[in-house]
Amino acid sequence: MELKDYKEGILQGNRLILSKAITLIESRHPDHREKAQALIEALLPHTGEAVRLGITGVPGVGKSTFIESFGMHLIEQGRRVAVLAVDPSSQRSGGSILGDKTRMERLSAAPEAFIRPSPSGGTLGGVARMTRETMLLCEAAGFDVVIVETVGVGQSEAAVAAMVDFFLLLMITGAGDALQGIKKGILEMAHAVAINKADGENAPRAEKMRQELESALQLMLPTSADWTPPVLTCSAATGNGLDDIWALIRTHREKLRAGGEMERLRRDQALHWMWSLIDEGLKERFVRHPEVRRQLPQMTAAVREGRTAATHAARQLLFMLDKDRGDKKGM
Amino acid sequence: MELKDYKEGILQGNRLILSKAITLIESRHPDHREKAQALIEALLPHTGEAVRLGITGVPGVGKSTFIESFGMHLIEQGRRVAVLAVDPSSQRSGGSILGDKTRMERLSAAPEAFIRPSPSGGTLGGVARMTRETMLLCEAAGFDVVIVETVGVGQSEAAVAAMVDFFLLLMITGAGDALQGIKKGILEMAHAVAINKADGENAPRAEKMRQELESALQLMLPTSADWTPPVLTCSAATGNGLDDIWALIRTHREKLRAGGEMERLRRDQALHWMWSLIDEGLKERFVRHPEVRRQLPQMTAAVREGRTAATHAARQLLFMLDKDRGDKKGM
Repeated sequence: MELKDYKEGILQGNRLILSKAITLIESRHPDHREKAQALIEALLPHTGEAVRLGITGVPGVGKSTFIESFGMHLIEQGRRVAVLAVDPSSQRSGGSILGDKTRMERLSAAPEAFIRPSPSGGTLGGVARMTRETMLLCEAAGFDVVIVETVGVGQSEAAVAAMVDFFLLLMITGAGDALQGIKKGILEMAHAVAINKADGENAPRAEKMRQELESALQLMLPTSADWTPPVLTCSAATGNGLDDIWALIRTHREKLRAGGEMERLRRDQALHWMWSLIDEGLKERFVRHPEVRRQLPQMTAAVREGRTAATHAARQLLFMLDKDRGDKKGM
Repeated sequence: MELKDYKEGILQGNRLILSKAITLIESRHPDHREKAQALIEALLPHTGEAVRLGITGVPGVGKSTFIESFGMHLIEQGRRVAVLAVDPSSQRSGGSILGDKTRMERLSAAPEAFIRPSPSGGTLGGVARMTRETMLLCEAAGFDVVIVETVGVGQSEAAVAAMVDFFLLLMITGAGDALQGIKKGILEMAHAVAINKADGENAPRAEKMRQELESALQLMLPTSADWTPPVLTCSAATGNGLDDIWALIRTHREKLRAGGEMERLRRDQALHWMWSLIDEGLKERFVRHPEVRRQLPQMTAAVREGRTAATHAARQLLFMLDKDRGDKKGM
């Protein structure tokens, strides 16, 4: 398929072509990568208007059910919703949480929704890059809310937080600290915390937790000067509170826009993207270098066991890269 | 001076030679860097036994006074204390907070203490590397507590947290959230929080804040499975509470040792050090590449203004590195 066809198909909101384009982004084939890059550049002017929403929370807080209910809620209001994920572990576990579309039955059947599981394999940097680029395609295809899910148990939160406008942390009562806090700093990345499953007998407990958490958050830093992360309760099962969450996201967005922060945020996101591509590229070149590849395992072992200083190992490994250039100079 | 003289001097605890060796570490001259590396490797077997203590807190919480009092307290118990700093801003501000030794009058006069300001200039990665290497020299020179201070307003906390065994956050009452929280995630890196200036009329307020903060921290994750960061009060002015802080650090250390976590921590620190050296080296090679250097400013501007996709800019820039190798292949 020609670049032109991809572009037109996506701009027309053609889901099949969108899916194919995402496959192109996820391909490791150099020709595909080149084409994908050209496509992203062609579509860039048609991106940036969607609400970019990150959602995290440990397994068990009901992320899938929440995204299903919240997504349907938005669709009923006339919005189109894309759901993506960053889950670098999806290779090992045999598919991200979103891989199992049956967990979002209504949403995956809705023509106004588009669900794409996490790209599998590769480093977090690579997976995050693909999701970020997929987000742009979805925006160009006319989705006005892009939800990026993260599994809440690894390093992926920071990567998602850097690509979204609003980062929502889901929690539940009674799960205990060890289950919920998990990653350092997640709570401080959040623009809001929603305590899910606040229904039936659990509602008073959820409200109590809400108050406690709100006091706790007041002792911590607001994400930006004029935003202190609120704590809400909701129930994905009954739909209670979903409206409040959406209202909150919109208020946040209006504040960003009014203060000129939105533009700054988009710029920062683009620069962050560029530098993570560069970092990823440099690391990739490094570990693929034949000599580095040969010696890295024994070097790592020697440093770990205290036999070699980290300085020595690092310099030895970096020196292997220079040899290419050195040889050339010598010629 | 010969490598052998440096090594012997440091192992004998000679302060003048220690200072000279640190200057060697901070030098950008390739010969010096090579020599510094050889020295670190020679001293490596004599390191790893000191208590590595990170201290952070925003300006105004009394870090200098705290370090002075705490350091003197340790010296009175027969310990030798080195005080270092990671402050990447020290170039701009004309010297780190530790540069002004008059702020630690007693400590800087004590023969059992060694105070070295933050290396100035360079990236955070570079400054952190030098401090980490200086820490090793100090350990080899017989200092059994190495305090690494960070200014509490930048990215440097994570770098310091990665090189120490215990990370202490200093706070004070009444400074307001905006002044104290500042960096995202600091609270969650801390192994303990000490509310300083808990003396005189301020003591009840400090105790109230201590209780609130302790509840807040219980809602967050413990740093490791068997450690929940306690909140204490102290007064650097009266010396109250300093003993409790030291007891806490020792308890933490014993727990780490008993569970075999100490060894794991040292290994992680060494590997982290190696990878940050590699990352730093790769980035350095990248930005120093003549072609990258020439084009980076305009590329960055184009990405920031949305004229160029981040993917395109990153690939263009990375491609410049490959050209060297490509040319060689072509020969």
